[in-house]
Amino acid sequence: MLNPVDVRARAAALGEHWSPRVVGSLDDCYVKVAKVQGELVWHSHDGQDELFFVLQGRLRLQLPDRTVELGPGELFVVPKGVQHLPVAEQECLLMLIERKDTAHTGDVQTALTRSLDDQLRTD
Amino acid sequence: MLNPVDVRARAAALGEHWSPRVVGSLDDCYVKVAKVQGELVWHSHDGQDELFFVLQGRLRLQLPDRTVELGPGELFVVPKGVQHLPVAEQECLLMLIERKDTAHTGDVQTALTRSLDDQLRTD
Repeated sequence: MLNPVDVRARAAALGEHWSPRVVGSLDDCYVKVAKVQGELVWHSHDGQDELFFVLQGRLRLQLPDRTVELGPGELFVVPKGVQHLPVAEQECLLMLIERKDTAHTGDVQTALTRSLDDQLRTD
Repeated sequence: MLNPVDVRARAAALGEHWSPRVVGSLDDCYVKVAKVQGELVWHSHDGQDELFFVLQGRLRLQLPDRTVELGPGELFVVPKGVQHLPVAEQECLLMLIERKDTAHTGDVQTALTRSLDDQLRTD
């Protein structure tokens, strides 16, 4: 059986920005943590909603028609099919919850794109 | 489109213990907040995992073979089918994530059991 997860500590321990790691499983979803700074890339997940929860710092989610600013303890769900660009002016720690079949940057491939195998690494 | 949710503030604003409220939706899951103190009741969810995330205070999850203690920023997923008793010695604020078809106290009905309609109230 799984153990409790200190998600902020797990996010803080990450060495690389924009490289999420799986820390838990909830039915057909994964719980992930990430350390981010700068911007990722515009993308969408056509079949899956994506939950962002800020653990430390601030995250800006640019959407086609507006911008959402999140601080510690705030969450936002990007609905399936909605283009979004995550941006952090300064280092930010996140928890993400999304379906297991969610591709990191949707149909877009960049140098920052991480495979699910990479996100499942335990090193 | 939904707005950002300050989950700790939403949990703190609740008036009744052990009465979760839905604050978001993620595919076939709801995001809920709850304010708890004392103990709920032994129960299980035969078909659904249940994620507990502590926002403030401490939560004890008694399981058949052990006890899990969670503090702020810690999460634990109770696997489907596993009996559990949530206990908080002092007031504790929680975020819960679970499938939309999850019954509050499983097959057990007590005075603390809340319907999904009650959890979806916006007053």
